[in-house]
Amino acid sequence: MRPKEFHPVPRPGDERFVVDESDGVVWHRCHHRSLYADTDRSGVVYHANYLRYFEQGRATLMRDVGYPYREVEDNGFVYPVVELGMTFHRPLHYDSPMWIHTRPGLLERVRVAFDYVITHAESGELVCKGFTRHCALNRKNVPVAVDPITARAWKSFPA
Amino acid sequence: MRPKEFHPVPRPGDERFVVDESDGVVWHRCHHRSLYADTDRSGVVYHANYLRYFEQGRATLMRDVGYPYREVEDNGFVYPVVELGMTFHRPLHYDSPMWIHTRPGLLERVRVAFDYVITHAESGELVCKGFTRHCALNRKNVPVAVDPITARAWKSFPA
Amino acid sequence: MRPKEFHPVPRPGDERFVVDESDGVVWHRCHHRSLYADTDRSGVVYHANYLRYFEQGRATLMRDVGYPYREVEDNGFVYPVVELGMTFHRPLHYDSPMWIHTRPGLLERVRVAFDYVITHAESGELVCKGFTRHCALNRKNVPVAVDPITARAWKSFPA
Amino acid sequence: MRPKEFHPVPRPGDERFVVDESDGVVWHRCHHRSLYADTDRSGVVYHANYLRYFEQGRATLMRDVGYPYREVEDNGFVYPVVELGMTFHRPLHYDSPMWIHTRPGLLERVRVAFDYVITHAESGELVCKGFTRHCALNRKNVPVAVDPITARAWKSFPA
Repeated sequence: MRPKEFHPVPRPGDERFVVDESDGVVWHRCHHRSLYADTDRSGVVYHANYLRYFEQGRATLMRDVGYPYREVEDNGFVYPVVELGMTFHRPLHYDSPMWIHTRPGLLERVRVAFDYVITHAESGELVCKGFTRHCALNRKNVPVAVDPITARAWKSFPA
Repeated sequence: MRPKEFHPVPRPGDERFVVDESDGVVWHRCHHRSLYADTDRSGVVYHANYLRYFEQGRATLMRDVGYPYREVEDNGFVYPVVELGMTFHRPLHYDSPMWIHTRPGLLERVRVAFDYVITHAESGELVCKGFTRHCALNRKNVPVAVDPITARAWKSFPA
Repeated sequence: MRPKEFHPVPRPGDERFVVDESDGVVWHRCHHRSLYADTDRSGVVYHANYLRYFEQGRATLMRDVGYPYREVEDNGFVYPVVELGMTFHRPLHYDSPMWIHTRPGLLERVRVAFDYVITHAESGELVCKGFTRHCALNRKNVPVAVDPITARAWKSFPA
Repeated sequence: MRPKEFHPVPRPGDERFVVDESDGVVWHRCHHRSLYADTDRSGVVYHANYLRYFEQGRATLMRDVGYPYREVEDNGFVYPVVELGMTFHRPLHYDSPMWIHTRPGLLERVRVAFDYVITHAESGELVCKGFTRHCALNRKNVPVAVDPITARAWKSFPA
């Protein structure tokens, strides 16, 4: 079972976004390095810690498209994770430089999703893929429709 | 989309195992409590931390069926996570007592899986469900067939 | 620089408390095991994770002396850490059973402290020592005097 | 008990280093932002997570002075933490931008130390101070003298 190839090419003029040459899809990206704290005794990054990288990916994406998650919460909404999935293709070791690629996934009436692809920043090799799906809650933790500013961010993300 | 019900009943004589009354399936279980360290600023357990609970579930199961994961590694095998998935139904808060239910999932030639269900230990409410899938590697990180002792643990787990 | 010896002996009738034979001091204790998640690529528990063990130590102590920290917060107080220190004597590895020994430290008008000693549960060897110091805040995060129930817990802890 | 003031001013030509105006001492610095994962249910960064920031501080310092910790280990040395201490002055919240200031501390025959000061990157306010002390081990975990390249990094750090 071979993962789909991933060939990100930086967009001229704004290197925070890349185009996957294999299918033309645009992704946001940010750079990160694994810490000693992230590794486990097998010498590689412990699987749960990729969820921190995913969080950094979506936080940076939201900031870069103009709606930081802190503002989402200031506006009275919370988007807890209700589902997630990941597949691991190659391990990251200590002090590995990585690109965290993130893009908006499915937009539903009461839920949004993010997709992620992490690659080794030097070799370009595929490390892992995953998604998180979030429901919209208001300040009282009552399910509500996705707020209009978030929905607009989903719709205006380059296709 | 309503999660399948989960009605675990302790097995007489060995309360480390329960039978799900709704379908007769046997699960191992262990008790745990969330720490302050596990929560985030929304007041509930941060999603990534459930993967710690899952690890505790499978480690305790393996110890209780007689093949602690430490011995698996001493015998020259490693079983890194290659895929995982989770769905969240209700949040856990600080100092929430929980039951972590674990059972062997699919056994393949070169992979094994675990299934998990976490419930609130007092209310019995469903908190989350998930799985982890692991590939077998030898000491040199080369993929190999699942070792025979692990395979036997899968086959002998009460159906 | 040799650490002071530590020779805990369970108190007859309540094994949650031990007496250090070398100086007669009473400690609360609870049992724990290190997870794979706690280790790093050097094969031992990453230093920051001992602070989780310390949290588990003080949370269990507070529950066992009748004033769980959840109730402290329900009563309108928060006790954030304002200072901490640790010394490491021997490492813990994966799946190491440990005793977390905790006792109330200095009680001041606006601060309380806990002291900790972690030992390997099988060898009895000293793993680490440490302390955390906490200030008292009310619900509005304003510094206040240590609440009377907490102060009583400090004063009534067996000397 | 008032913390010593800290007035870092970027060094012209290399903003990775600052001079503390109050005493002329030079510090390395790197920028970071707190994640949701770092916070706890009181709304602020959980104390143990500052040790991650410290690790990022010393890893970035070592890389910037030309001896990344990965190379230290490749050369056959390990520097586990044997002692640490922290004091907390003001909390960081979610998505708080921070400067992590790090500098080499005491250099002993068999141990080295780092000092840290974290400030809020916008307000400049002091968040926490701390240190970590590390012993030198060889590949067999035997205590050895601090390796000469590390010692040189300590000695050549701008005073």
